[in-house]
Order: sequence, then C-alpha cells, then structure tokens
Amino acid sequence: MSPEQFRIEGKKIIDWIADYYENIEKYPVLSQVKPGEIKASLPKSPPQKGESIDNMIRDVDEKIIPGITHWQSPNFFAFFPANTSFPSILGDLISSGLGVQGMIWATSPAATELETRVLDWLAEMMGMPENFKSTSSGGGVIQDTASTSALTAILAARERATNFEANQKGVRQKLVAYISSQTHSSLEKAIKIAGIGKENLQVIDVDETFAMRSDLLSEQIQKDKKAGFIPFFIGGTLGTTSSNAMDPLQKIGEIAQKENCWFHIDAAMSGTAMICPEFRHLMKGVELADSYCFNPHKWMFTNFDCDVFWVANRNELINTFSILPEYLKNKATESGAVFDYRDWHVQLGRRFRSLKLWFVIRHYGVEGLQFHIRKHIELSQKFAQWVKDAEDFELFVKPPLNLVCFRHKAGNDFNMKLMNAVNETGKSFFTHTKLNGKVVLRLSIGQTHTEEKHVKQTWELIQETAKKLS
Amino acid sequence: MSPEQFRIEGKKIIDWIADYYENIEKYPVLSQVKPGEIKASLPKSPPQKGESIDNMIRDVDEKIIPGITHWQSPNFFAFFPANTSFPSILGDLISSGLGVQGMIWATSPAATELETRVLDWLAEMMGMPENFKSTSSGGGVIQDTASTSALTAILAARERATNFEANQKGVRQKLVAYISSQTHSSLEKAIKIAGIGKENLQVIDVDETFAMRSDLLSEQIQKDKKAGFIPFFIGGTLGTTSSNAMDPLQKIGEIAQKENCWFHIDAAMSGTAMICPEFRHLMKGVELADSYCFNPHKWMFTNFDCDVFWVANRNELINTFSILPEYLKNKATESGAVFDYRDWHVQLGRRFRSLKLWFVIRHYGVEGLQFHIRKHIELSQKFAQWVKDAEDFELFVKPPLNLVCFRHKAGNDFNMKLMNAVNETGKSFFTHTKLNGKVVLRLSIGQTHTEEKHVKQTWELIQETAKKLS
Repeated sequence: MSPEQFRIEGKKIIDWIADYYENIEKYPVLSQVKPGEIKASLPKSPPQKGESIDNMIRDVDEKIIPGITHWQSPNFFAFFPANTSFPSILGDLISSGLGVQGMIWATSPAATELETRVLDWLAEMMGMPENFKSTSSGGGVIQDTASTSALTAILAARERATNFEANQKGVRQKLVAYISSQTHSSLEKAIKIAGIGKENLQVIDVDETFAMRSDLLSEQIQKDKKAGFIPFFIGGTLGTTSSNAMDPLQKIGEIAQKENCWFHIDAAMSGTAMICPEFRHLMKGVELADSYCFNPHKWMFTNFDCDVFWVANRNELINTFSILPEYLKNKATESGAVFDYRDWHVQLGRRFRSLKLWFVIRHYGVEGLQFHIRKHIELSQKFAQWVKDAEDFELFVKPPLNLVCFRHKAGNDFNMKLMNAVNETGKSFFTHTKLNGKVVLRLSIGQTHTEEKHVKQTWELIQETAKKLS
Repeated sequence: MSPEQFRIEGKKIIDWIADYYENIEKYPVLSQVKPGEIKASLPKSPPQKGESIDNMIRDVDEKIIPGITHWQSPNFFAFFPANTSFPSILGDLISSGLGVQGMIWATSPAATELETRVLDWLAEMMGMPENFKSTSSGGGVIQDTASTSALTAILAARERATNFEANQKGVRQKLVAYISSQTHSSLEKAIKIAGIGKENLQVIDVDETFAMRSDLLSEQIQKDKKAGFIPFFIGGTLGTTSSNAMDPLQKIGEIAQKENCWFHIDAAMSGTAMICPEFRHLMKGVELADSYCFNPHKWMFTNFDCDVFWVANRNELINTFSILPEYLKNKATESGAVFDYRDWHVQLGRRFRSLKLWFVIRHYGVEGLQFHIRKHIELSQKFAQWVKDAEDFELFVKPPLNLVCFRHKAGNDFNMKLMNAVNETGKSFFTHTKLNGKVVLRLSIGQTHTEEKHVKQTWELIQETAKKLS
C-alpha cells in the first residue's frame, strides 16, 4: 500500500469510527452472540492472495460488530469503565504511525522524555507528593495494566527484603505480604507469579465500609513476626473493585513504615478523581507509599492500555529490573544521564503510549478533566438518591465516588435474574458482585459520553424490569 | 470533540502519517538530540484550559520528531526490526476506535474469537504441529512481548514442576532452568521474576555457530540431578539476538522430553521466516516443544505490540493463571464453552490486538508475506557476499536468514568508531554485539520498505567511512 492509498483508506476508517460513535446507542451494549458464533463466521484458513481494505471493513461490520460489547456506549455501566476519547484515539494513531519502539532512551529519546514529562504533569495534577516526581528521587512509568504494576511493586519489595539475584535459600519462604479481603485479584496473582506463594499472603478482614481494618493488619504482622516470618509488602486500595471502598491509607502507611514493608497503593479506577482537589482527602497517606498506580485507561479518557505507576525511589525499581546485554549498550545509557524505561518494568519492548496521554491532557486541560469527572460523580450521587427513594431497592454502601452498589430487596436470585434481564435487552449493561454473601448490583458511571438521560433510562429500565419479574 | 470534528482532525492526522512516510528518508535515522533536550522543550506544567489538535500536531513536528529514532525508515538496520505497514496501522486504528477491553469472552466475544481464529491461521501458515492449534489441545494467545511469553512459559513450567499455589518449601529452591550463553536477556529476567533465582539458571555453552551445545546440556542436567536439583525448564532459541544462531531444537526437545522439562522456543524475530516452507527445517523439533513464541511486531509488518505465544496444552497454562473473583463471573465462563484469555497471561485487561494482525494477513495474503520475507533474506545474503568480497572486512558468521554479522579487520575499537561515525551521519543506523570477545557489527534487514538501494547505500557508506577513519 502506498502513502497515497493510505490517505484514501485511512480517511474511510476515520469516517467509519465517526459513524460508529454516531450510531453507538443503536447496538445492544452487551453482545448477544453465542459462544463460537463469530469464529464459525470466519474462514478456517488464511487467504493466499491479498484482499482489499473494503473487504475487511465489510467484515468488521458484518462479522465483528455483532460480537462487540460496546465499552464506549454511554449505556455501559459494567465492571469499571475503560473509556476513551477522540483526542486519545488520534494520539494513539500517531503512535501507530511512527511505530517507534522506545525500550531505551536511545531508541527514541522523545518517547522516553515525553513520558517523563507527562507523568510529572500528572503527579502535579493529582497533588502527588514531590518525591514521586522524576525531578526528585522517584518518577513515573507507563505500564500496561494495574496487574503489571502490582507485580512490579511486589518484585521491587522482594528485592528490598532479600536479594533479587539470589535464590534466597531459607529467606524467601519467610516473606509475607498483606492485602485486604477486598483487594483486586491481580495482587494474589502477582504474589503467586513472584514465587511468594499464596500461603504467604495474609488476607486482612474489612470493616463495615469494606475497607481494610488497620488494627487487624497490625495484629497479624505481630503474630507473623513472632512465628519467624518477615513482613515485606502491604497493598492498599484507593477504591476497591467490588464496592469502591477506601482503605485507611494513612494508618496502613504508618504501619508499613514502622515494619519496613513496601507500601503499594492501587488506585486503578478511582485515582482519576484525584484531579479534583475536593476528593484528595481519600489519598491521605500517599506520602508514606513506596509506589502508587492508577489507570488513565479506565476513567481518564485515554484508550487502553495506559496504567501509570509511580515510585518514591526509582533506584529500587531500576536495581530490580536492570540487565544490560552487549547488544543494548550505547553511549547515552553508559553516561547515566538518561532513563531507560525497560529497566522500570517486566517487558523490554515499549510502545509510545505517552502521546495519547499528552493529547488527552492538552485537549481537555486540567479544568476540562475536572468538569467531566465531577459530572460522573454527580450522576452517581443522583442515582444513589433515586435508589434510596425507591421502596423495593436498597443502597448497599454510600458511594464515595462514581460506583453505586445497590440491590433489590427480593434476594440474591432475584437480583441476578433482574441484572440478566436488563442486560439481555441490550439497552444497558451493568454487572454484579457479592458482599457479605449478598448479590449486589454495581452501576459504574464513567463512560466519556454518559449523560443524565442515560443513567435515568437505565434506572427506569431496572425498575420496570423488576416489576415485571416480581 | 464531536464525531464531526473527529472526521476533520482524524483526516489531518491520516495525511500527517502519509506525509511522514513520504519524507521519512529525509530525517536522520538515529535521533541526534542530547539527553534532556526534548524534556526541556516541553512546558513544566500541564495546561489548565484545553488546546487545539493543530497545536499538538505542530508540537509533534517541532518538538517530538527531532527526538525520534525512525524505526520505520528503510535505512533502519539496528537491533531487530519493529516494522509496521499501512494495513496494520488501519487495523490498530479500528481497535483504538472500538475501545473494547477483551479480558474475558463476555466483554467482547469477537475480540476473543477473532484472536483464536487468526492464531490458528498463523499456526497453519507456519507449518506448526496440529497440537498447537485451538482445535486440538493447545492454542495461541497474543502477548505484548517475547519477554512476557518467556515469563509465562516459565510460570507454567514452575506450575508443572511444583505447585503454583503453594510456597513449595524445599522444592522451589531445587528447580533449575537451562538456557544458552546466547539466549536473550529476557529469559534471565523472567527466571528472576519467577523467584527461581539466577543461581538456579544454568547457562550452557555454545558451538562455533553460537548455537547451544546439546551434549553440554545433557551433561549439566545429569550433574544437577546427581546434586539433588530438579531440572524443570529449557529455553531454546530460533535465531538468537546477537548473531541469529539456531539452537538444535530437535536434540534439545528430545532431552527436554526425557527429563520432563518444559521446552520453550523463542523465535521472536526469525519465526516470521517460517511462513516460507524452505526455512522450516530450522524449526525441526518444534513438535517436542511445550510453548513457542514469535513477534509479528518485529518482522511481520504488524505494529508493536504483538507477540504470538502458543502452547501445546492450554490446560497447563490456564491452571497456572486462572483466578475468578465474583465480579468477573458470568454465564459464558461458567459454561466452559469459551476461552477467557486473561487466564492465559499475566495481565487482566486486553486490547483488541488481533484486528491489526487480521488486516495484515488479509492485505498481503500468505503469498505477499512470503514475497517480502524472501526479499529481505535475499538482500541479506547479497550484503553478506559484498562483505566477503571486501578486503578489509570479514563475515563473522554465515547468516541463516536476514541478520548479517560482520566486522572490519582493524579490531574492536575501530569497529565501534566506524559504527558510531556511520550512525552519526543520520543516513543509516545499525548496532553491534560482542561474540567471543570481538565487537561485531549487525546489519538487520527487515524494515517494510527496505530495498536493494538502501542496503547498497549503507554498504558504500560503511566502506567510505572506514577508509576515512583508517
């Protein structure tokens, strides 16, 4: 394909995307296909000869779209959002076009330095402590997901507690990590990956708001120490996945500091709210953290993947991950004057992901981002009030931000039936969790284009469906 | 930004990319900026108010482009390629536009099923054994990089050898992994991450072609077993990074099978050549492997990131990674009739990456891909012949495919000086390695638009520069 053909085909696809967003509310939000249906519609063997882009666009329309669950629909209220925005798509398009691989500074200095700068911007926008900035002892790096950030934090913690190089005969098996019963499953996965073992993961109980009980954390640590174990890592959450609970970060941080544990904060979804100063009381204690992550790809209008991971002391991270084979040696690395981000994470290769984040921040500006975040939170508070006012429903927890946990009073089975029935209409899509053995419905409000009418329609649909099923 | 504005801005960026490729040879291939230069050109604080896309494009031109090392230049011969193509950029653009997060089947069935189908296509295109296909006991999954694939393989191997859940008191410390002295550094990194420890990584010496010596592998395993250790993983390479050496996969595979070790093959760059039947003798023994990966984002015209990872027995992989919290439970998962790819790797979230791969395979067709791969290999063989014919240069190893290792006869320092001088002209960019203590220059031919004239110009430039420096 020549650049001239690319101009033609590319513009068709830009129009295709614009059309998609203009029509997005016409599609069922949750895909209605059956397992195997899409695969069966695709040829069993690859084509020998080349095909036209028009053919492919036609197949996207006819074969792929029916199998899409529309995360960008304003009626998507499931899980946590993975929203995007037009400026993000454009920034990402330039990244695809440039096709640079920024594994080390020398392989594209701009990819490294823009990332450093934009992550310092974000730290400032969020009111993060100075030590998380690259201009101090720390710095940020873009990871793919919060799962990988959790793994990265645990590995740096393991390095601090023992010695990453060695097999640690006798030491590694004594390391103990602490999370709450509401912590995201990625932490458990990371603990297993790092070879700590699930049996060395202590799961601390939560209070009535589903936040970690710091008193129980303290007790467990003392008990473990007495038994000869070595506490090395505590994971706190700013906004748990099930119910958006807020762990007491200040108290946990103080314990972590006293016990010389690495303190990691996972703010994957809720971190975005820190752009608004009025919500920053939720992150009080962050200055005691060793690492902190949140996902602009969830609620900050930046398309997947883009998780931001900060550390207070970058040398601990670099010491953990650095390996320098001969074929990657270069003058800039040897000078010590640059960051080589491949030493900040698991992977070697890197996509130029700061471009899309830069486009998002510049397009919206700090004030624009605050406006949209506040709107989502206001809509959530309204929805919570509607639930409270309804006779047959109960609000399960007071929503701290933009996730509303609620349920019909008729019990677990009824709530599952209600949720499935609403989702099957295709008009709205939300998901559930279980808290204290009860099925709880989750309305997660964070899609870029969600307005009050979408939330209202969903609430009416839930009420109508509940009446029909009663 | 409205869809109408997106049409306008998006088309500008399509034109910007087309212009970039039309002018790419005018830029210095290796960025000539100094450390800190790009960062200093960017504002220290984020904008409070939103800005126009025109502003951002202007800044990309003025501030970012000077800091780009042009991986998509036909004069890029460094490292391994990370090539792309217009159809790949378009497929990736649709993926950004749809913005689906395919962590489980239900969150977009098409994202899962297209991936399954396209990876079965690729297995067929490469002549992979049947058991690596999803229609048999195995299957493929897209990972970000070969580093992550290596980690994934090692974790599945660890699961097979011990028990992933448990801390394996006494057992884990006895596990030993085997690679060659030429294996990519990502394997060592993965061994450390998985908690095996560098001291339990045996590095086997290589023969005169820099391929692993299977006799030494056998001996080392016997020695380790006698000392009470448990061999559990062997990493073989189809095309090492330094010199593109080909490990004797058949022999290694037989040893792995006999010793009940997981056998992983890393074919990150060279795997693409398997599209051409005449090179498949290099992968003889793959039917003995437990896992195999290669990177379409290196040499197969698919933009970063896209590593393809196949396993012979998918259940071993799923057992290693599966965790199912309540908030991800759904009917399709419970039915067992679908793949949930988040159980096939470290991360939870997933971008819809099979779209770009699908576009590439359909645009080129199998025959088109074969044509371009053969062209790159022919160019490499020509370059190797030119080196052989030159008085002052020597061919360091016979190039099996598209990487030429050569050096000037004047010694290590001279070769480094020569390379840096050529790279500083901005007309071409290649890198070096060390083999048997000698600095060796690497010309890696695999950029999408590289033609004979680019290789010839580079060779002339190398010769001229060498004369000037002599």
